[in-house]
Amino acid sequence: MIPRIESIEDPALAARLQACIDGKTKPLGALGRLESLALRIGQILGTETPALHAPQMLVCAADHGLAARGVSAFPSDVTWQMVENFLAGGAAVSVLARQHGLALTVVDCGVRHDFAPRPGLLVRKVAAGTQDASQGPAMTAAQCAQAVAHGVDVVRGLPGNVLLLGEMGIGNTSVASLLLARLAGLPLDEVTGAGTGLDAAGIARKRAVLQQALDANAGVVEPLAALAALGGYEVATLVGAVLQAASERRVIVVDGFITGAAVLVASRIAPHVLQRCVFAHRSGERGHGLMLAQMQAEPLLDLGLRLGEGSGAALAWPLLQSACAILREMASFESAGVANRAG
Amino acid sequence: MIPRIESIEDPALAARLQACIDGKTKPLGALGRLESLALRIGQILGTETPALHAPQMLVCAADHGLAARGVSAFPSDVTWQMVENFLAGGAAVSVLARQHGLALTVVDCGVRHDFAPRPGLLVRKVAAGTQDASQGPAMTAAQCAQAVAHGVDVVRGLPGNVLLLGEMGIGNTSVASLLLARLAGLPLDEVTGAGTGLDAAGIARKRAVLQQALDANAGVVEPLAALAALGGYEVATLVGAVLQAASERRVIVVDGFITGAAVLVASRIAPHVLQRCVFAHRSGERGHGLMLAQMQAEPLLDLGLRLGEGSGAALAWPLLQSACAILREMASFESAGVANRAG
Repeated sequence: MIPRIESIEDPALAARLQACIDGKTKPLGALGRLESLALRIGQILGTETPALHAPQMLVCAADHGLAARGVSAFPSDVTWQMVENFLAGGAAVSVLARQHGLALTVVDCGVRHDFAPRPGLLVRKVAAGTQDASQGPAMTAAQCAQAVAHGVDVVRGLPGNVLLLGEMGIGNTSVASLLLARLAGLPLDEVTGAGTGLDAAGIARKRAVLQQALDANAGVVEPLAALAALGGYEVATLVGAVLQAASERRVIVVDGFITGAAVLVASRIAPHVLQRCVFAHRSGERGHGLMLAQMQAEPLLDLGLRLGEGSGAALAWPLLQSACAILREMASFESAGVANRAG
Repeated sequence: MIPRIESIEDPALAARLQACIDGKTKPLGALGRLESLALRIGQILGTETPALHAPQMLVCAADHGLAARGVSAFPSDVTWQMVENFLAGGAAVSVLARQHGLALTVVDCGVRHDFAPRPGLLVRKVAAGTQDASQGPAMTAAQCAQAVAHGVDVVRGLPGNVLLLGEMGIGNTSVASLLLARLAGLPLDEVTGAGTGLDAAGIARKRAVLQQALDANAGVVEPLAALAALGGYEVATLVGAVLQAASERRVIVVDGFITGAAVLVASRIAPHVLQRCVFAHRSGERGHGLMLAQMQAEPLLDLGLRLGEGSGAALAWPLLQSACAILREMASFESAGVANRAG
């Protein structure tokens, strides 16, 4: 069921791409991170003249049993209310997707609400929210596998060669913290943050609940098992989406802490996933820096964002287009008749 | 001749903008730097629903007498060759301006070359390059005033409410370092960098030449006098452009080290200029961090760019559009029927 994900390493292509970048009319390396981004996209798409088309913003939404334990500053109902907001075009990710021409697909992976069908919404609900992970597994292995399979299927049905990852789910910074703590062996203190806006006392309460969840699911360390134990449905669906996108060599644009947790899980299943990823931004959420380090990821933006939804991925998107445009459209020293360095 | 630049501080508008941002469907502050950017643009344009229109990328080009002293890794002829490249559409700034729909105007402020007239090129040449600042003033006071006046005039003739700043001129990181050292009283060691790619020995030689320029123009500390003494024509034209744009309350998007030097000079003439500025990025050029600190500037991007031309300003441009879109198009908790925090 898990798609096979081969290495796309190709030293000859990488060398050609680097030579192409170095021959452009600019001092060597002067476009900084845009150059490494161009190199990466060229490698993912397997060409010296990459073009991104039909970019897909995939926002996976679900509810979490843990939310009843007061781990979030917002009530669980905000999950479905925000799904409605996404679809009505009023959320940050809606506005940014519209600005950049990103097709927005919202997936109900396990929201505690029944949505009326409409364009842009896919209902792939495994259950109406996970179980409370502080009392035992959030999902059964079968439920988790079903959510992963949904992600695979959803991406199979989407056009284009770029997938931007987004999510919504009150309580899901808790899930991301739990997965990071478990898979990376990091202490909860270092990976538990304010989420949507807890104060210090709130974070302390959240941390205590997360410790209960780790204890209630002790010894579960294999990536898919940990995903099932700690949740949630949107993260599992994103894991499937990431695996499928990677197997198709789509460029995967990772948003923040929660989509990052999905990529972390996917990369523990299939490490070559990371070759296909572009990390959009360093989030303001505590623990995200450690998560990025686990994946040797250097994000593009550092704007103190902590909204999720895919908003950071959407904000970084024009940089990917710029990187491709530089490769495809910039003149070389030779073609432009510009002298290359003194002498 | 210098346009009058009033303070645009308006605490009531700022409060309304902040309330508008805080009422959007997102946790408080969750859009990070995008929120302060929205606040700034709203204040510059004097509205809670800012819209940017007809953005103008202004690339000012000139040559420098100092270049003959070996302060750059590239020969002076690259200045005019790159102007040709800008106009032919092959340079980084050409590609990025095209991507984002920025109108590109290149101004010959003092290039040592006669250009054939063509669309997109304005010839406002004061002289064919400055004098060697290591031997005395780079420009006379009259020449400097003429270049500043050109910048004022050029911006008067441009449409739109946003000005993005770019430049080209072999040797002009030297000019920026000199202006920063003189106006901020910083040691040359801390503000002299590799420019287009000098090695350590090259930087040491450059620094020695810059010390000669400071010595040859000792005691000149008044902003316009320092600008005349240390050069160059593209920087002086940009100073005029910045002053005019500020007086018209255009949003000014500052690129990197050289355009930053122009803004530094302008802000020493008229401090309220800084109220109108958005700093696009933190450059890889040594000294830029200190320059930004002089203006209490927090740039949007940090991508190790050190190309100039306006490339960093163009890369940051979509973030300005996003900030406006967030203000104009995002739903409020009330309008979307989303619960705001627990309880």
